[in-house]
Amino acid sequence: MLAKTFFNRHPGTWKMLIVAMCMALLGCLQAQEPQGHVSIILLGATGDLAKKYLWQGLFQLYLDEAGKGHSFSFHGAALTAPKQGQELMAKALESLSCPKDMAPSHCAERKDQFLQLSQYRQLKTTEDYQALSKDIEGQIQHRGLREAGRIFYFSVPPFAYADIARNINSSCRPGPGAWLRVVLEKPFGHDYLSAQQLATELRSFFQEEEMYRVDHYLGKQAVAQILPFRDQNRKVLDSLWNRHHVERVEIVVKERVDAAGRTSFYEEYGVIRDILQNHLTEILTLVAMELPHNVSNVEAVLQHKLQVFQALRGLQKGSAVVGQYQTYSEQVRRELQKPDSFHSLTPTFAGILVHIDNLRWEGVPFILMSGKALDERVGYVRILFKNRAYCIQSEKHWVTAQSQCLPRQIVFHIGHGDLGSPAMLVSRNLFRPSLPPESWMEMEDQPELRLFGRPLSDYYAYSPVRERDAYSILLSHIFHCRKDSFITTENLLASWVFWTPVLDSLAREVPRLYPGGAENGHLLDFEFSGGQLSFSQQQLEQLLPGPGSAPVPSDFQVLRAKYRDSPLISAWPEELISKLADDIEATAVRAVRRFGKFHLALSGGSSPVALFQQLAMGHYGFPWAHTHLWLVDERCVPLSDPESNFQGLQAHLLQHIRVPYYNIHPMPVHLHQRLCAEEDQGTQIYASEISALVTNSSFDLVLLGMGTDGHTASLFPQSPAGLDGEQPVVLTKSPSRPHLRMSLSLPLINRAKKVAVLVMGRVKREITLLVSRVGHEPKKWPISGVLPSSGQLVWYMDYEAFLG
Amino acid sequence: MLAKTFFNRHPGTWKMLIVAMCMALLGCLQAQEPQGHVSIILLGATGDLAKKYLWQGLFQLYLDEAGKGHSFSFHGAALTAPKQGQELMAKALESLSCPKDMAPSHCAERKDQFLQLSQYRQLKTTEDYQALSKDIEGQIQHRGLREAGRIFYFSVPPFAYADIARNINSSCRPGPGAWLRVVLEKPFGHDYLSAQQLATELRSFFQEEEMYRVDHYLGKQAVAQILPFRDQNRKVLDSLWNRHHVERVEIVVKERVDAAGRTSFYEEYGVIRDILQNHLTEILTLVAMELPHNVSNVEAVLQHKLQVFQALRGLQKGSAVVGQYQTYSEQVRRELQKPDSFHSLTPTFAGILVHIDNLRWEGVPFILMSGKALDERVGYVRILFKNRAYCIQSEKHWVTAQSQCLPRQIVFHIGHGDLGSPAMLVSRNLFRPSLPPESWMEMEDQPELRLFGRPLSDYYAYSPVRERDAYSILLSHIFHCRKDSFITTENLLASWVFWTPVLDSLAREVPRLYPGGAENGHLLDFEFSGGQLSFSQQQLEQLLPGPGSAPVPSDFQVLRAKYRDSPLISAWPEELISKLADDIEATAVRAVRRFGKFHLALSGGSSPVALFQQLAMGHYGFPWAHTHLWLVDERCVPLSDPESNFQGLQAHLLQHIRVPYYNIHPMPVHLHQRLCAEEDQGTQIYASEISALVTNSSFDLVLLGMGTDGHTASLFPQSPAGLDGEQPVVLTKSPSRPHLRMSLSLPLINRAKKVAVLVMGRVKREITLLVSRVGHEPKKWPISGVLPSSGQLVWYMDYEAFLG
Repeated sequence: MLAKTFFNRHPGTWKMLIVAMCMALLGCLQAQEPQGHVSIILLGATGDLAKKYLWQGLFQLYLDEAGKGHSFSFHGAALTAPKQGQELMAKALESLSCPKDMAPSHCAERKDQFLQLSQYRQLKTTEDYQALSKDIEGQIQHRGLREAGRIFYFSVPPFAYADIARNINSSCRPGPGAWLRVVLEKPFGHDYLSAQQLATELRSFFQEEEMYRVDHYLGKQAVAQILPFRDQNRKVLDSLWNRHHVERVEIVVKERVDAAGRTSFYEEYGVIRDILQNHLTEILTLVAMELPHNVSNVEAVLQHKLQVFQALRGLQKGSAVVGQYQTYSEQVRRELQKPDSFHSLTPTFAGILVHIDNLRWEGVPFILMSGKALDERVGYVRILFKNRAYCIQSEKHWVTAQSQCLPRQIVFHIGHGDLGSPAMLVSRNLFRPSLPPESWMEMEDQPELRLFGRPLSDYYAYSPVRERDAYSILLSHIFHCRKDSFITTENLLASWVFWTPVLDSLAREVPRLYPGGAENGHLLDFEFSGGQLSFSQQQLEQLLPGPGSAPVPSDFQVLRAKYRDSPLISAWPEELISKLADDIEATAVRAVRRFGKFHLALSGGSSPVALFQQLAMGHYGFPWAHTHLWLVDERCVPLSDPESNFQGLQAHLLQHIRVPYYNIHPMPVHLHQRLCAEEDQGTQIYASEISALVTNSSFDLVLLGMGTDGHTASLFPQSPAGLDGEQPVVLTKSPSRPHLRMSLSLPLINRAKKVAVLVMGRVKREITLLVSRVGHEPKKWPISGVLPSSGQLVWYMDYEAFLG
Repeated sequence: MLAKTFFNRHPGTWKMLIVAMCMALLGCLQAQEPQGHVSIILLGATGDLAKKYLWQGLFQLYLDEAGKGHSFSFHGAALTAPKQGQELMAKALESLSCPKDMAPSHCAERKDQFLQLSQYRQLKTTEDYQALSKDIEGQIQHRGLREAGRIFYFSVPPFAYADIARNINSSCRPGPGAWLRVVLEKPFGHDYLSAQQLATELRSFFQEEEMYRVDHYLGKQAVAQILPFRDQNRKVLDSLWNRHHVERVEIVVKERVDAAGRTSFYEEYGVIRDILQNHLTEILTLVAMELPHNVSNVEAVLQHKLQVFQALRGLQKGSAVVGQYQTYSEQVRRELQKPDSFHSLTPTFAGILVHIDNLRWEGVPFILMSGKALDERVGYVRILFKNRAYCIQSEKHWVTAQSQCLPRQIVFHIGHGDLGSPAMLVSRNLFRPSLPPESWMEMEDQPELRLFGRPLSDYYAYSPVRERDAYSILLSHIFHCRKDSFITTENLLASWVFWTPVLDSLAREVPRLYPGGAENGHLLDFEFSGGQLSFSQQQLEQLLPGPGSAPVPSDFQVLRAKYRDSPLISAWPEELISKLADDIEATAVRAVRRFGKFHLALSGGSSPVALFQQLAMGHYGFPWAHTHLWLVDERCVPLSDPESNFQGLQAHLLQHIRVPYYNIHPMPVHLHQRLCAEEDQGTQIYASEISALVTNSSFDLVLLGMGTDGHTASLFPQSPAGLDGEQPVVLTKSPSRPHLRMSLSLPLINRAKKVAVLVMGRVKREITLLVSRVGHEPKKWPISGVLPSSGQLVWYMDYEAFLG
């Protein structure tokens, strides 16, 4: 499937790909075969990551794999000259350690062997790479071995990638029959575009199958356990792992440290790019994905992960809250020599609400949170189940393992926190989990310890038999070709597609300042409702001035005036929408009380979206069951087209309320597989539907908008249809695509008992001003022809449209 | 509104009613007027209720009201002869007490006055009533007073009602200009029919306005506070009191005592009639109703209460769990002289899940629970709010009043329990409530006390300034004409309409036996999911044998065989539906994978309901967004008619899933305001819709049923249409109403890729047997003509249909 998608996008590369896939397959098979030699080249061998994790990981790989048939050589590489590099590397290798259960003498012996197989070499010029390749080949030949493959680990800054990649591709590929694997470390770009550029560049040197992008969280034991856990407890989880039972999912990485000393990196990236876009998103996909029948099927896992991305609801500004610890800007000024006036907008804290629009997860909040300078260091994934029980006895009689009223949760404890180690927790009132006893063991109780609201004894709690570092696990996965522990290009780009819009929209957002540590109190707590996130506490003072201090909504009241001799209601957008929604509800209630039904004709476009949401979420008394919904106008596209007005109505209103199917009246723009064909008589059909159901064809309320060219409904200045005449519904032509439209005519609109015109946004300022001055000139400005013959016309304009 | 409904039902009585309403109005006004005399006649003056509550309540009324303009006389009455009755009554009056803050001397004085105004009289014959009336009149005249009105309090068993009512009506009404109020005590019937009979009988003697049906829970201080609390905290509750914020509502009355000594009553009624149908239901309406603008508007309150009943989702057997304490049957055998073999099915414990289908409460579980022999005595209404917050800090840093992650709840504590008194609790992280300081005061903390999972200090907690007994409150409301504290006839009948079906369906249900007290453990805990309630724990042994021991589902596996040479799948209903749903999903997934869409044609009727529910609730992977839904047949009624097949599809499937509007294809039985008129060409329209969208008009799956006459779809033995010929969609005639139908034809059905026939229930046994033996005779048995030309036919029959 992955390959197929790739083919479709790059039809020219299929031949190359098949070769690559065979090679990859070959590589994976050969890894099991005896007698091959594997060369591992660590680029950046004297850097921090190498010193801290990678050499130890390579040593661990050697301990695990040597003697199973492969032979190894390890090449530390850097730009440093040979002698100095050799020294630095020797230093890095000094601290290698063996597993606790290995005898010291045995350890010393193995360490010695490893050091003998490891050598430093300077890799700077193309010649250096050629020489390396030659040396490897010579060595292998000399020892009578066969080459299995080469692993290049890029532990270098991204700007160095291209050069190294070019050199490897041109000068350092292994011979035929042996595989190449290159291991890449984040950051993988800064947004979708840069990630794509980087990916394209790398693809010009390597096949997809050759690249292993590391997200080291995927090597953390608790994270790596998510899929196996879901698989091994499949039977009981099958019925629980869905929206009917899961209350929420929390994916959290809290840090106590701040960004001091790293602001040059941090100022570029911020917490979302640093933690959420990669680590937390990867975890999200592991929790949310449909479980493949066989979780060892690498391709199935990767494919199911991608499907999660497809189902993610797009993030908006309102999906996020961001914060910044108070001393951050000062740190940036100091470290990056910025002027005193400089204030950073980079978030060091973010809470994000993610929704997954599929049947399994619809409505379940996935909360992603990370921040620096918080009260503790901890990482976890918490699945909290709904409490759907009522417990008869008074609480003091509840028995932990039996009471369905105590919290039921599954926690993948990534590390740190009060537990101080990776762990798996399953509430005892949920089920006793099945975990592989060779890698997870039951923990001893720590009576004082409370986790997630309950004492440790409330959980079946497991810790790893042997704690292993993420890098040593990932190095083993690279060696064993376990590509599902790495980020494929498709996966990476899908993640950036998801995150880039919200990053863009947050770029100018002023983060809430927080003091740091336990002093944060409840300042950063946040709440969600209606898909939106907001801080729980009002902010008392904002220390950082925002860019441009516009007046705030509460500065003004709702304004009542006249516009074109009709009542005008003006307010800030939120109040305006709220007032309009109230007015529509009042009209609906009156109509239903008098006539038993309410006929409402709605316009499409973006302005009514907020109105639809307001009506759907805030109006419990709205008589939807007795409301008929009509369209004011429609684009001549299938109803299911994203451009269709009806589609917007369905997404933002219909799916949240219960209007009977037969009270919904989309315009028949799509008949006999054709769009708005005259001979299909869609306009007549709609007109006769109106005339049959709506007394006197007089709608109770028609909601209109106004375009910057003075159009309303789909009645345009350039198109004469529908401005007068007998036809209640007409086909018209719009200057913008899709050109063909269906619209209620002005005469039909003017029969309505009430017409509301909603005009919002600064972009409408000019036309608002103009239309206020013109008379009845519908041919020039169709909106000027809106004048209900016996009904009422009310203008709803926000201050930006009205006051500019 | 009330009056209007009443008029509609009883058009003849309007004249009488207007008179009555004027009188009632008069009565209420006059209660404020000076100089009137009020006679209060307590029938059953020497009974338990009178002794325990009523005399004290009357004394309290006297203390509160005497001196404000009215004069009073109190008449204790019973069947007992005067002298003995006088003595008994004197005894009952001995223990009258004054409020704590009244000086003893003052108390003695007032008590003395009250005793002087109170006298016993035997009321047995019509003459007795006449004499009473005459005496009252004489006394009033003698003292130069004007009669304000008379209150008759029926503290007698219901069988005595009719006689007393007749006598009052004929001989004891006050003169013109004075009001009559009769106060009635439950039980008000045993089910809808008996309640209606009783109501009709009472109506022949009294006007609706004259009757005060007591539910003494409405006089309990915490219950009486519900509406005022909602009113006084309207501003903050407006946004909280709805499905977006309320997680659940619990309405609970737990008793520690059992029914010993009262089994003759209890055996007739059981816990649902004793507590749930009246007390808990009344409380439910107070919590759930739309709040009138003016909560003092009696008529608005009553009307809004009735609207709650209209929105209640019907209860089913699955909405309830019932239990019976283990010694109950033995108590019944002993007290009612039943044989040793007798086992009672009367529930002494019930948990009920109520859903309210309006926009405010849709999806919010209202849990009603009551039982005897439980671990404690307590009554409360608990509104638990949703936790929509994420709290950043580790729990140990949470501050009660600020943390939105601690439980947020409002509790109307009716009485008893660990608090031991009525109380109002509002979580401190919710809001500081506004309560009238003259009647509610803040409680002092009791550090050891935990309530609803939190220490008392977590709440703003209030107790009444003065604890008042429910009866004294209600007597005051009767006196002040506060009819909203009483049960109107409409309210009573609406409640019985709601409860009678579930009472009927539970009549043969074997209740779960429980040991009683704290020993119940978690045995009675229950859970809800998909609108159904069930006990959380599997019952290990059932001590009481059920009526008829049928084999249980797990005794059999799914059976695979042949039927009419096609595959047959047979199982118990639950497994059968589950298998069919799995098969449909698998077919759908395959079709969508191959063709991008799935065309499914569904039959109506009752059998598929369980299937629809299964598909809606249990199949997360179902590709609904790519599924087209068609109807196999339809009744010629409007789509919104409850008889319409489409309506069933909408209620049980469509409203739970997300199928795009334009993928739903109801049959066009209703065109141009006519039903299945030939000239509207509905059949042709549907046929061409099919031909346009479904490749080769070959559905991916057609789901059929089979009638006891061998019909399938709406193809009937008596009606030749649709059995062959060219017409893909036909109009047919059914032997049962509504006669006219639209149906897919046999030839069209037989073009399908797969046809599944679902046959369930013992009633199908005969036709199943018959059809197994006949050949291809569609004219006699249309089902025998189902034979897909190139597709597959599978029969799904439950064991009852297949094995009988």
